[in-house]
Amino acid sequence: MQNWDVLYTNVHLATMADGYCEILDGAIAVKDGRIAWLGPRAELPASACRVVDGAGCWLTPGLIDCHSHIVHAGNRSDEFEARLNGATYEDISKAGGGIMSTVRATRAASDAELLRQSLPRVASLLAEGVTTLEIKSGYGLSLESEEKMLRVARRVGQVLPVTVATTFLGAHALPPEYAGRADDYIDAVCEQMLPALAGAGLVDAVDAFCERIGFSAAQTERVFRAARAHGLPVKLHAEQLSDQGGSELVARYDGLSADHLEYLTPAGIAAMARHGSVAVLLPGAYYFLRDTQPPPVAALRAAGVPMAVATDCNPGTSPMTSLLLAMNMVCTLWRLTPQEALAGCTLHAARALGLQEQVGSLAVGKRADFALWRIARPADLSYAIGFNPCCGVVNGGVWRAPVVSLPL
Amino acid sequence: MQNWDVLYTNVHLATMADGYCEILDGAIAVKDGRIAWLGPRAELPASACRVVDGAGCWLTPGLIDCHSHIVHAGNRSDEFEARLNGATYEDISKAGGGIMSTVRATRAASDAELLRQSLPRVASLLAEGVTTLEIKSGYGLSLESEEKMLRVARRVGQVLPVTVATTFLGAHALPPEYAGRADDYIDAVCEQMLPALAGAGLVDAVDAFCERIGFSAAQTERVFRAARAHGLPVKLHAEQLSDQGGSELVARYDGLSADHLEYLTPAGIAAMARHGSVAVLLPGAYYFLRDTQPPPVAALRAAGVPMAVATDCNPGTSPMTSLLLAMNMVCTLWRLTPQEALAGCTLHAARALGLQEQVGSLAVGKRADFALWRIARPADLSYAIGFNPCCGVVNGGVWRAPVVSLPL
Ligand SMILES: [Zn+2]
Ligand SMILES: [Zn+2]
Repeated sequence: MQNWDVLYTNVHLATMADGYCEILDGAIAVKDGRIAWLGPRAELPASACRVVDGAGCWLTPGLIDCHSHIVHAGNRSDEFEARLNGATYEDISKAGGGIMSTVRATRAASDAELLRQSLPRVASLLAEGVTTLEIKSGYGLSLESEEKMLRVARRVGQVLPVTVATTFLGAHALPPEYAGRADDYIDAVCEQMLPALAGAGLVDAVDAFCERIGFSAAQTERVFRAARAHGLPVKLHAEQLSDQGGSELVARYDGLSADHLEYLTPAGIAAMARHGSVAVLLPGAYYFLRDTQPPPVAALRAAGVPMAVATDCNPGTSPMTSLLLAMNMVCTLWRLTPQEALAGCTLHAARALGLQEQVGSLAVGKRADFALWRIARPADLSYAIGFNPCCGVVNGGVWRAPVVSLPL
Repeated sequence: MQNWDVLYTNVHLATMADGYCEILDGAIAVKDGRIAWLGPRAELPASACRVVDGAGCWLTPGLIDCHSHIVHAGNRSDEFEARLNGATYEDISKAGGGIMSTVRATRAASDAELLRQSLPRVASLLAEGVTTLEIKSGYGLSLESEEKMLRVARRVGQVLPVTVATTFLGAHALPPEYAGRADDYIDAVCEQMLPALAGAGLVDAVDAFCERIGFSAAQTERVFRAARAHGLPVKLHAEQLSDQGGSELVARYDGLSADHLEYLTPAGIAAMARHGSVAVLLPGAYYFLRDTQPPPVAALRAAGVPMAVATDCNPGTSPMTSLLLAMNMVCTLWRLTPQEALAGCTLHAARALGLQEQVGSLAVGKRADFALWRIARPADLSYAIGFNPCCGVVNGGVWRAPVVSLPL
């Protein structure tokens, strides 16, 4: 007689074990917050635990948004509006707009205010079955305010039912204090900020923005070396606007992932395949910026590079808080299959965070993170545009309704 | 002393009267389901009614989705998946896919089943502040099943808090029974179906699909003449894939709207401006089909043709149930301003349904249909991608929470 805590039956399982994999008319059991058993209902052993009837719903691993800048203050709808009313990027820059307006607002916000503004965005993701969320710093650009961002990111995982993975992105943009002194700023990132933040336990991974308008490959590599010295894994915003060799660089450092990748080259793909780095696809920015250069999906597929899919939620280039919509976009715009899109928000997203032993698929021993969906087939998740069929979420074995109502 | 039913204060009003118009720190009063007063809070007369504190939210007219095929059975995620896994349109057609698969499923469904499948989609729209919804027939293509669709459309407005406008779209596609006999089918539409359905009070407007792959301009005109004989207004799916002169035709019949319009010509624009027809923009289909020809937004704007924005919710070309996302798409993809997008889902959408005297703006005497939003400015509604800031809806003076929970 099995001694489980709870058993979900009358569900179809998309286990995502080693990719897309289905068990029709299945069951899944939870014990101590972990998956204790799963399989076809016909093979279910006898048990005496609480049973939940899944009413024929589909059950998938909890979704994982593996790339977000969701903690920030203010938004940039004023710039969006100004641009559509005829303002140029130069006008907006002169008026103090762009990323520095988010840096100013984020620096000015208290911990409580930053949390208050970020929680509704996180709640929007959670309503769609997200159970793990990566959150980057990078709008503080000083030790004090980067620390505040990461502290608030950790706090998100304490006040909402979601596992948060933090990423230090000090090398996101050059703060005004360091104008013309990018190398000095990288010194500060590597020698002051990273040691302090890592020492405080606030950093799960280290990221940088390697781009003509960001930091050079050489500067990025200094950040990676510092991360390695602290035993932290790396990832990189790479090849979004131009080829800077960033994906080869991050792969050489056994990076968890290279993200964006619209201008990724065959050499970059080969390096990622060799080192097992995940390609994180971010269709929200591509859509919002009206880019026309898609990432090389067919070549990534052919090379066996795992593809993850994320929102890139950020106020400047991807004000997006729907991972299901990101799944639709990679299918519609970039021709991923619905199976690939789902693997991209579960199995491969877990790997992009180094959490593949814990989450991302339904397997005995993994964390009991899963979502229930009122759908006819898993492809419905990628097919619909702006529809949320989530009817329940289990996080570490704990049931919650899909919608998390925030206090005002 | 005013004798209102309820007064909302501490709200900013986007009244949309004659286009975009704001009242900061305003108030709005309801009496007998209609708007009884609105203005700056400072000018509020004394009253003794129930007062609701809007907590600084923005209050807009309830949103109006003026073009949908939201009542249908089944979906086409199987085709979506097959296509992304390499199937051609021919493969799918041979396998019985395409619009005829939706016609088969819709014909086969009972009233109750059709309603059951449609309600979650409608609820998705309502969660975003929609208070008026147009629903077309067109997947029945026989008297009996078109009647069923329109009956279910009316039923939607009885079981959910939304005003439904029905449109008879018998001339949507040629049913298999009439293969090779399109003119005979138009005879049936005009002489049997329309008289019966209009007689039963199921038809608020008449629509057709005028396209190379649909019906010719001559066939469309026969439908319009029949509509006129029954005193019903007309609208048209026009110029989506090619220029068929449909918008000039529908304008000549004083049509409420021409919809899609990617291939609209200057002559079509001039005719619409002359006759006051609304241009209904449908970005969901453009996005989902990866079209590259945008409708002539700048020319429509210059000619003073009112532009509405709708979801076109349908299983084949726009499986979209978010009007906020349609607002983002017209801004992002077609460069409407956020003000135009909001007017497109309120003031101009009302006119596209002939309901401009009843709904679409905040004005004394109009129906008390409005939505409350937890946003910093109205542009936030168009800026965000997949975020729903709706925090309350009033429909005919009756308050409801934004999310309508459906019984299983
Ligand atoms: Zn990013
Ligand atoms: Zn349509």
